[in-house]
Amino acid sequence: MKQSGLVVAIVGATGAVGEEMRTVLAEHRFPVSRLIPLASERSAGTHIEWRGEQVPVEVLDDDAFEGVDLALFSAGASISERYAPKAVAAGAVVVDNTRAFRMHPEVPLVVPEVNPEALADHNGIIANPNCSTIQMVAALQPLHAVAGLKRVVVSTYQSASGAGRDAMDELRDQTVALLNFAEIKTDVFPRRLAFDVLPHIDRFEDDGYTREEHKMVNETRKIMGLPDLPVCATCVRVPVFIGHACSINVELQRPLDVEAALDALEAAPGLIVQRDSSSYPTAADCVGQDPVYVGRVRRDPSVEHGLVLWVVADNLRKGAATNSVQIAEALHAAGALA
Amino acid sequence: MKQSGLVVAIVGATGAVGEEMRTVLAEHRFPVSRLIPLASERSAGTHIEWRGEQVPVEVLDDDAFEGVDLALFSAGASISERYAPKAVAAGAVVVDNTRAFRMHPEVPLVVPEVNPEALADHNGIIANPNCSTIQMVAALQPLHAVAGLKRVVVSTYQSASGAGRDAMDELRDQTVALLNFAEIKTDVFPRRLAFDVLPHIDRFEDDGYTREEHKMVNETRKIMGLPDLPVCATCVRVPVFIGHACSINVELQRPLDVEAALDALEAAPGLIVQRDSSSYPTAADCVGQDPVYVGRVRRDPSVEHGLVLWVVADNLRKGAATNSVQIAEALHAAGALA
Repeated sequence: MKQSGLVVAIVGATGAVGEEMRTVLAEHRFPVSRLIPLASERSAGTHIEWRGEQVPVEVLDDDAFEGVDLALFSAGASISERYAPKAVAAGAVVVDNTRAFRMHPEVPLVVPEVNPEALADHNGIIANPNCSTIQMVAALQPLHAVAGLKRVVVSTYQSASGAGRDAMDELRDQTVALLNFAEIKTDVFPRRLAFDVLPHIDRFEDDGYTREEHKMVNETRKIMGLPDLPVCATCVRVPVFIGHACSINVELQRPLDVEAALDALEAAPGLIVQRDSSSYPTAADCVGQDPVYVGRVRRDPSVEHGLVLWVVADNLRKGAATNSVQIAEALHAAGALA
Repeated sequence: MKQSGLVVAIVGATGAVGEEMRTVLAEHRFPVSRLIPLASERSAGTHIEWRGEQVPVEVLDDDAFEGVDLALFSAGASISERYAPKAVAAGAVVVDNTRAFRMHPEVPLVVPEVNPEALADHNGIIANPNCSTIQMVAALQPLHAVAGLKRVVVSTYQSASGAGRDAMDELRDQTVALLNFAEIKTDVFPRRLAFDVLPHIDRFEDDGYTREEHKMVNETRKIMGLPDLPVCATCVRVPVFIGHACSINVELQRPLDVEAALDALEAAPGLIVQRDSSSYPTAADCVGQDPVYVGRVRRDPSVEHGLVLWVVADNLRKGAATNSVQIAEALHAAGALA
C-alpha cells in the first residue's frame, strides 16, 4: 500500500513520551511515510514538528486509525483500553506504553534485548513494559543467562517525568516556590516532591505495595519467563526531572564473581557498563540516551551468590519511547508491519 | 564543682550539627551551667546565641577543655582524633559524632534506645554512630527482639546536610543555577547533586563499597551486638536538604506478621509508626523532630520471614545532635558526668 514507508500514529503525541517517540523515530531513521500525531481535544489546533514541517495534531476518535500501519500509544491506560482495539480492527499493529494490556496472557510484553521471541505471536497489540522494569530486566537478563536468578530486591529512584509533563512542571514550580518562600502547589504528586522523596508511585494496593511495585514484580516475571521469581520492590519518586535509577540486590543460583558479571553485562546488547568500581552512572548521564547504564557492580557478601548493581536509564527513552520504537523495528525487520 | 549544672563544650559549634546540638540541649533542658562553643580559626570572632545571649565562639586549642564536664564533638574525624584525648585528659567526658573512634574496641558506640548498657563501661569517649545507621538500628532493634534478625539489605536516600552546611549551600546554589541556566559549581559533592542522585557518600574502598556503606554494616553489627549479622548497604545522596530515608528489606529468623511487627515497633522508644499502609513519613515530616519515623511496613513475599520498612529521620537530630544529647542525658542520669 505504502511504497516508501509506514503510516505511523502516535497517540499522546503532545506528552513527554509522545514527543520522545517522535525524536527516537527520527534518530533511528524508522521508515515513516506519514506521521499522524493524535491527542485529546485539549491539544486540538496545536502542531508538532516532524522532519522540519509543522504537522497538525489530530483529535483521537474512532476513525483515527484508517490506513495506519503502526500505532504507538502513550496516553494513559483508559485511552489504550478504548482505542487500541479500534486501531487493531483498522489494521494497525499497536505498541502500547501503558499498563492496559501488559499482563494480558495473549499480549506479548517485550524488551527486545530480553525476550524478542515473544514478538512472534501477537494479536495486534504488543505491550511496552513499565519504565523501571525495562531497565532492571535489561541488566538482570545477562546475569540470569550465566548464573540463574534466585531472588531480586530493588529500591528505585524514579524521576518526575515518569508521571508525565505536568509532573515535571510541578517539580520545577515547587522548587522555585520553595526557594522563594512562596506557596507550594501540589496537584500531580501525592505530596510535595521538591527537596523530598516519596515512596509512593501509582496507587496503594491492599497488600501495602503500590501498583508501581506490583508492576516491577509481575512484569519482570512475565518478560523473563520466570513466573515464580521472587522479587521485592520499593518504588520511590525523587526530585529529578529525567532518568530513573535502581539499586538492585540479586541472589543467583550459581556462583558468579564480579569480573564475570561485568563481562556478561558488557557482552549484552543495549547496556553500557562502568567497570571502574569508583565511578557510576547517574540520571544526568543518561538523559537523551537510548542505552541502559550499569555501575557499582559488587559482591553482596550478606548472601550466597549475591551481587549488587546500580542501573540507570532515561525513563522517557529506554523506559518508554526507545523500547517502543525498538519493538516496532523488530516487527518491521520480521515483515510484520504492513 | 558546679552547683547549677554542667560545663558543656561543643566542638564544631558553628556547623550544621553543632547548631542543632545547641537547639537540642535547650529543648531538652539539659542542665548546662556554661556553654563553650568551640570552632576553627575560620569562626573566630563570631558569636552564637545561647539562652538569649550572644556567646563568643572560642578557637579550639589544647587548653580549651579546662573545667569542661561534657564535650560534644562534631567537627570531623581528624579534629576528634587530635582533641578528644585532650578533652578526656582535662577531665571531660566526650561524646564524639565522627567516625574517629566508632569502631575502637574500647569505645562504646551507642544508640540509647538500642544499647544503653554499653554506656556503663567507657574510657572517657563515647561514639555517636553514623546518621543513617542510627535510624536503621532504632527500627531494627524491636524486630530483632521479637523475631531475630537474619539479614538486612538497605538502600538509602540521604540528604545534603549529612555532608554539612557547605553541602546544603551547594545544593541550593546548584538548584538556582540550573533553573537559571547558569554555570553550576561543584566543590563539596563529587558531582552535581541538584536534580540528580549520587550513589556515592564518603570515599570508595577497594571492595567497591563506599566508606559510608561500610559504616552501615560495621556500626550496625557493633551497636546491636551481632558481629556476624549479614548486612548489605547502598548509600545514595539525594537532593534534599534535611532528612534521611532508608528502604530496608529484613529477613528474620522467626515468623513475624505485619501486625505483630507494627506492635513491636510502636512499643519501642523513640519511634513514630505509621500503621496505615497507604501513608508514609518523608524527610519533610521529620525536620526538627527527634524521633525516628517508620512506615510502609509490609511483608516481603520474596523470602521466608521477610519484612520491608521505610525509615525516616532528621539526620541532624536523631542522626547526630539528638542522639549525642541523649547519650549525655543517660550518662548524667547515671551520675557519670561531673
